[in-house]
Amino acid sequence: MGDKAYILVLNGPNLNLLGKRQPEIYGSRTLDDILADLRSHFAARIRIADFQSNSEDRLITWIQDYGFDEHCLGIVLNAGAYTHTSLAIADAIAAVPAPVVEVHLSNIFARESVRHTSYIAPVCAGSISGFGEDSYFLAVEALLRKKHR
Amino acid sequence: MGDKAYILVLNGPNLNLLGKRQPEIYGSRTLDDILADLRSHFAARIRIADFQSNSEDRLITWIQDYGFDEHCLGIVLNAGAYTHTSLAIADAIAAVPAPVVEVHLSNIFARESVRHTSYIAPVCAGSISGFGEDSYFLAVEALLRKKHR
Amino acid sequence: MGDKAYILVLNGPNLNLLGKRQPEIYGSRTLDDILADLRSHFAARIRIADFQSNSEDRLITWIQDYGFDEHCLGIVLNAGAYTHTSLAIADAIAAVPAPVVEVHLSNIFARESVRHTSYIAPVCAGSISGFGEDSYFLAVEALLRKKHR
Amino acid sequence: MGDKAYILVLNGPNLNLLGKRQPEIYGSRTLDDILADLRSHFAARIRIADFQSNSEDRLITWIQDYGFDEHCLGIVLNAGAYTHTSLAIADAIAAVPAPVVEVHLSNIFARESVRHTSYIAPVCAGSISGFGEDSYFLAVEALLRKKHR
Amino acid sequence: MGDKAYILVLNGPNLNLLGKRQPEIYGSRTLDDILADLRSHFAARIRIADFQSNSEDRLITWIQDYGFDEHCLGIVLNAGAYTHTSLAIADAIAAVPAPVVEVHLSNIFARESVRHTSYIAPVCAGSISGFGEDSYFLAVEALLRKKHR
Amino acid sequence: MGDKAYILVLNGPNLNLLGKRQPEIYGSRTLDDILADLRSHFAARIRIADFQSNSEDRLITWIQDYGFDEHCLGIVLNAGAYTHTSLAIADAIAAVPAPVVEVHLSNIFARESVRHTSYIAPVCAGSISGFGEDSYFLAVEALLRKKHR
Amino acid sequence: MGDKAYILVLNGPNLNLLGKRQPEIYGSRTLDDILADLRSHFAARIRIADFQSNSEDRLITWIQDYGFDEHCLGIVLNAGAYTHTSLAIADAIAAVPAPVVEVHLSNIFARESVRHTSYIAPVCAGSISGFGEDSYFLAVEALLRKKHR
Amino acid sequence: MGDKAYILVLNGPNLNLLGKRQPEIYGSRTLDDILADLRSHFAARIRIADFQSNSEDRLITWIQDYGFDEHCLGIVLNAGAYTHTSLAIADAIAAVPAPVVEVHLSNIFARESVRHTSYIAPVCAGSISGFGEDSYFLAVEALLRKKHR
Amino acid sequence: MGDKAYILVLNGPNLNLLGKRQPEIYGSRTLDDILADLRSHFAARIRIADFQSNSEDRLITWIQDYGFDEHCLGIVLNAGAYTHTSLAIADAIAAVPAPVVEVHLSNIFARESVRHTSYIAPVCAGSISGFGEDSYFLAVEALLRKKHR
Amino acid sequence: MGDKAYILVLNGPNLNLLGKRQPEIYGSRTLDDILADLRSHFAARIRIADFQSNSEDRLITWIQDYGFDEHCLGIVLNAGAYTHTSLAIADAIAAVPAPVVEVHLSNIFARESVRHTSYIAPVCAGSISGFGEDSYFLAVEALLRKKHR
Amino acid sequence: MGDKAYILVLNGPNLNLLGKRQPEIYGSRTLDDILADLRSHFAARIRIADFQSNSEDRLITWIQDYGFDEHCLGIVLNAGAYTHTSLAIADAIAAVPAPVVEVHLSNIFARESVRHTSYIAPVCAGSISGFGEDSYFLAVEALLRKKHR
Amino acid sequence: MGDKAYILVLNGPNLNLLGKRQPEIYGSRTLDDILADLRSHFAARIRIADFQSNSEDRLITWIQDYGFDEHCLGIVLNAGAYTHTSLAIADAIAAVPAPVVEVHLSNIFARESVRHTSYIAPVCAGSISGFGEDSYFLAVEALLRKKHR
Repeated sequence: MGDKAYILVLNGPNLNLLGKRQPEIYGSRTLDDILADLRSHFAARIRIADFQSNSEDRLITWIQDYGFDEHCLGIVLNAGAYTHTSLAIADAIAAVPAPVVEVHLSNIFARESVRHTSYIAPVCAGSISGFGEDSYFLAVEALLRKKHR
Repeated sequence: MGDKAYILVLNGPNLNLLGKRQPEIYGSRTLDDILADLRSHFAARIRIADFQSNSEDRLITWIQDYGFDEHCLGIVLNAGAYTHTSLAIADAIAAVPAPVVEVHLSNIFARESVRHTSYIAPVCAGSISGFGEDSYFLAVEALLRKKHR
Repeated sequence: MGDKAYILVLNGPNLNLLGKRQPEIYGSRTLDDILADLRSHFAARIRIADFQSNSEDRLITWIQDYGFDEHCLGIVLNAGAYTHTSLAIADAIAAVPAPVVEVHLSNIFARESVRHTSYIAPVCAGSISGFGEDSYFLAVEALLRKKHR
Repeated sequence: MGDKAYILVLNGPNLNLLGKRQPEIYGSRTLDDILADLRSHFAARIRIADFQSNSEDRLITWIQDYGFDEHCLGIVLNAGAYTHTSLAIADAIAAVPAPVVEVHLSNIFARESVRHTSYIAPVCAGSISGFGEDSYFLAVEALLRKKHR
Repeated sequence: MGDKAYILVLNGPNLNLLGKRQPEIYGSRTLDDILADLRSHFAARIRIADFQSNSEDRLITWIQDYGFDEHCLGIVLNAGAYTHTSLAIADAIAAVPAPVVEVHLSNIFARESVRHTSYIAPVCAGSISGFGEDSYFLAVEALLRKKHR
Repeated sequence: MGDKAYILVLNGPNLNLLGKRQPEIYGSRTLDDILADLRSHFAARIRIADFQSNSEDRLITWIQDYGFDEHCLGIVLNAGAYTHTSLAIADAIAAVPAPVVEVHLSNIFARESVRHTSYIAPVCAGSISGFGEDSYFLAVEALLRKKHR
Repeated sequence: MGDKAYILVLNGPNLNLLGKRQPEIYGSRTLDDILADLRSHFAARIRIADFQSNSEDRLITWIQDYGFDEHCLGIVLNAGAYTHTSLAIADAIAAVPAPVVEVHLSNIFARESVRHTSYIAPVCAGSISGFGEDSYFLAVEALLRKKHR
Repeated sequence: MGDKAYILVLNGPNLNLLGKRQPEIYGSRTLDDILADLRSHFAARIRIADFQSNSEDRLITWIQDYGFDEHCLGIVLNAGAYTHTSLAIADAIAAVPAPVVEVHLSNIFARESVRHTSYIAPVCAGSISGFGEDSYFLAVEALLRKKHR
Repeated sequence: MGDKAYILVLNGPNLNLLGKRQPEIYGSRTLDDILADLRSHFAARIRIADFQSNSEDRLITWIQDYGFDEHCLGIVLNAGAYTHTSLAIADAIAAVPAPVVEVHLSNIFARESVRHTSYIAPVCAGSISGFGEDSYFLAVEALLRKKHR
Repeated sequence: MGDKAYILVLNGPNLNLLGKRQPEIYGSRTLDDILADLRSHFAARIRIADFQSNSEDRLITWIQDYGFDEHCLGIVLNAGAYTHTSLAIADAIAAVPAPVVEVHLSNIFARESVRHTSYIAPVCAGSISGFGEDSYFLAVEALLRKKHR
Repeated sequence: MGDKAYILVLNGPNLNLLGKRQPEIYGSRTLDDILADLRSHFAARIRIADFQSNSEDRLITWIQDYGFDEHCLGIVLNAGAYTHTSLAIADAIAAVPAPVVEVHLSNIFARESVRHTSYIAPVCAGSISGFGEDSYFLAVEALLRKKHR
Repeated sequence: MGDKAYILVLNGPNLNLLGKRQPEIYGSRTLDDILADLRSHFAARIRIADFQSNSEDRLITWIQDYGFDEHCLGIVLNAGAYTHTSLAIADAIAAVPAPVVEVHLSNIFARESVRHTSYIAPVCAGSISGFGEDSYFLAVEALLRKKHR
């Protein structure tokens, strides 16, 4: 793995609100805080790129653009609500050679039933949910372990 | 965390066949091999206990016995097929104070539809699937990270 | 009814945790406490035998063993989560001549939907749910009234 | 409990036909016979009031009228077919402070599938079915036990 | 069949609006017109009694009251919307010895899906739908033919 | 209506077995007996033609051939099991100008659930079921009444 | 609009309990209080008539009686639980010329799933839910606006 | 409420076609016409801002941007077809403090079944449908009434 | 492609009625007219054979007989209602080497829901629907293009 | 048809990957290659415009913009995964006067079940699937034939 | 069992293709080969008659004709795809006194879900699937064993 | 096949009750009687081993232990009620090289619907049901025939 190698962390709709929405309840950690910690933790091992968008098509396009990039070791994807409604994102994941790991902050199986079915799970390399921001750390770890096999 | 602290790795039905079933395809790594690597990897950080059984009730009883033990930091559970048929295991998980992390070797969402619903997912602290034996490493890591919060 | 007559109280998975799990919420009454009260209350009228197991097959075997015993007036069965997943227990109930009464501590219809369907209800003599430990008292009473018809 | 305390037994549609319909098969015991026995059995402990109607709205109105009465210890309700079709009766039960116990003469789970779902079960204090007229005795007993807690 | 013999024609909710609702489209024939024709047509053969109500319980009570009357040859029932929502009417039909024939003016199977399932059909002697007011004539004819067997 | 006018009675699969199958239970009346009575009863009013076949396509072709014939006042159709499986017969009924009346000997709604849905009911003029062989008489009567409007 | 013009506000089962049930939680505003405010607010513009009943048939009959009255500008209907179980009320609404507006105090879509389907919504002029007693004000406003078109 | 207070009216996919599509049928009133009337009607009471987009993510972003703005009294949302397919819009509504009122021009319950389920209804403050452009007026009125409580 | 090469056009139940049924609405074009045009249009490129039958088994047998014929370039199949009910035709299509193209005159997805599922679609080479008689022309064109690859 | 007439070919999400994804399997033909062939083939008959986007809203907006353009003879739409999830695209198609033809490269009915239901099929003029890039040629041909009627 | 005794082997649609379809994969054994072996194997014990047809009605008629023949010991039926779509064949089986044994070459439960439900299984004496041509041998054996009871 | 070759007959829950339960109805043949006959019948051809248990895990473990044994020609499995509830047994069957044949005494398709779905059928070599104890003989025969191929 040369200097150009990186892992892409993609965040979908409403994840830009982390830390902003009811901070007295959900805490004041923003998505930027989480990503900074993530970069810091893995600084010696891998570069972390990231994007967030509320747009299904921008998520698709990023998966297409980076998923074919040979320097991209893999994609960590928190697709938010699109997890449960977007077959088009699933098609993009299935099309690219880079492994994609699905992550969720909360345990989606403990939430309402519409969140129990995932379009993207069947085409991802693996799935991690319920560990809060640790879900991202575990997903990056998983991609790094995979690479060393 | 004193010397007595440990994490329990529980394996359910048919996981005793790992490495035995069609090794030319599935590889020759047995459950014991995986657990030895797991212990070796985390030797400096945590002790790993483990049990395997094809019996639903032994799994329930182990969850009860260890889940109330203050030295048990958490349980990593690969319930195999019982994931999809055992409400009684789910009730045991919900009853004990120790956090339980659901793991699967394969991506259960890419398999037949009966494996897409999990009785135990809603009551687990989190869920990790699809990373082969790395699923166990990630689950132990998750429990250790959780502890340090 | 001679001296040998008795009623069998069977308890299924996780009911051994009564009084142990979050006593500040659920109270500190254990299954043994409840059974002691039950025996005391009915001491003059009937002997009470009891077993608890987390094992589906031990429950089946007890139903078979005692359900054919002419001294057994009936069985009070709290099958716990097996109520909703065990057709094999239902088959055992249907096979034996002794009447079986289904009991539940909580109102299972006020809980999640998986607990609204019961494999065993259609083959039981009757069903009682929602009265806490009184469910056991009512079930024994029901079997005694039935006998006197 | 003063002299004014009572339990209300409410019977819904077609229960007025008990004892009239095919007496050679169902027996000649009428609803009045059952209620007379019930009053006689509990004479020393509690007064029993009762009403029967084929009308959903009269059942609702009685639940409202007596369910708020401080002298009413509880309501024993055999809602007959309305058990399976009346959300309005369920709403009335949920609105009143008096506990309501659902009873059925037959084991509704051994009958056709439309009778397996109950609108009223989730809002009742408990549910008793399958014991013939003993279902009423057990329900009154349950309410009396509850009162003494 | 003596002078006292009769057939009861029961009409359920909203059938009192026949001839009143959009007469330029549905015609100006009222329920009374239809019943007058029916009586006239069968005058030499059988007496016709009739009731209409928007009330489920009055329909139940009439079925109970007349269904046990030995002079009642049978009941012709257009239960309107209650056909599809009233299990209590079905229970009343099943309880009485008089045969009940289900009729509908329109072809209920050509209407919206909620009207394709009938609670009362399984317990009726037979079912006739789609012939407009002729449905009533055919139903009376059916009961008379049945009687002569 | 001239001399050429007629009503066609069509019988589908297995109805040729009437009177042959377990006559001690079902009676010894054959389809020919029923049709002879039918012809005799309506001799003064209408000619009755009839066909029976176990073949879906012959039923379709007869509906096509006679349904466009101006002398055909209507078709009485007992489609037997094809009622529940043949959309092609339904399409033929919908295509022809002659009114088609669906008949069944038994009350199909009191039988197993697969017989509760009818492909042909929505496209028929009306439906009559449950009156045994009287179902045919009522259906012919219905077509004659319709004609005189 | 002459002096005789009015809008009818109809309330169904259990709405007579408003203000009576747990006033410390639901507030002490009764249905009469709400209607008094409604009349006062619209005094200069329209007369408000109102009825409440727990009876499905009385609601049907009022819809029939007032829905054909030329002075009735429209009906505001809170059918309570009958919203979800009464096809007969829906048929009455569909039969009358007066526009009917469905109202609910609470957001029925945020409640249990049985309350997500409405028999009456498809035949109403419009539907308003979730605004507490303001739902009634908005519904009257809607009918007045409609009239002025 | 100072000068800066406003209500935001958001329109989703295809609502930009109002007045353009088959004006001889749907009328020639455009979305701009409706909004002009709305502003004019409420000029003395509240400022009205508005956006329309065919884009799910722009709707999400507007809900996020304005839903956290303290000057925004509430959002009137006609999400068009996204009502029935966008869980991501529902998540945005649930996240912001501003109340959101769901509106529809037509009665969605009288249309095809896919339009009977709404992702956004459960998280909205209330829902108004079926009043044509009056739905917008009623929704603004509802938000103003809410504010004055 | 020698002189013996041909494409077989198969038409199923009720398609023999084209042009006969309500010609003022559906037009007077018969199946023969369509086939004559088809032959004329493709005269220079391919020979067209055709059969029509209301019989499921004759359609199966033709698919078997011609589907193994090396001169048959492919089969254009309008299976009519059998599209939605015949697994046996699907099995025949799957068994033969000749490519089969499914055609429909109307847009089956705009019709009733039973026509939205097709047994034969999954085993056909392709599917064309909604273009009236042009569907046949496009299907023949498709088979010819396929051949030239 | 003047010089300005054209047909618009719209391609949805992930179709930009044609020829890029696993060319050794799927071939190296890109979307541009297919469109070039299409233009060349129809050069003498019609001009072909085209757009591709991964964005649902851009597809909606193009359908709106070109669907009202009198020079646009029709739209050929391969909506990719949005076929199965976008009601908003379906609404746009239903709103515009230009005929829209649905195309798919693969036989969607031979793929996983989520791809068997199409939101857009019911509102399209016709549907063509399974012919690879020939699907586009057939769709253009269909629109040209339609025009000449 | 006299000389006239025989067992009838009936084969349904597409089974005439055995040995013809892709012989390099499925083998070159035809239905005739299998039947010859079957006759040879059982020559000393029973005569074997057989028919094959793609026609549902011929299968029905054979079941009727031979199922009432006292010399017919039983019928071995491979109904092919009609297993899953023909209620009429099931009705014929239920009507005849001869026992019918359902056979399948392949394990139908390992195939697509439409093949998991069988109309004929509930009315057959027994069912054998998955043993290739041995299924026929086992079925004949089963009928012979049955006879000797 | 040497002397060590054998076939294992496994019986699941409640099959130990054969011959004990209502012998006047079910006969007095016990499982031991059946197995003795089976051994006697096949004495010259194969050795028969057998186990019975009410325990899911013992059945799993036996399948694992014997399914990998090279001397085991195959397993005959009557899993009783576990057929319909145990995915874990199915996983064991799928894992071992020995062929497993599913047997049932009764025709499970003629029983209640929960018994119509089998977890184990898809992974078994074949399935035999409905022949009483002959089902075991046919299954052993099937395994012996398979071996000689």
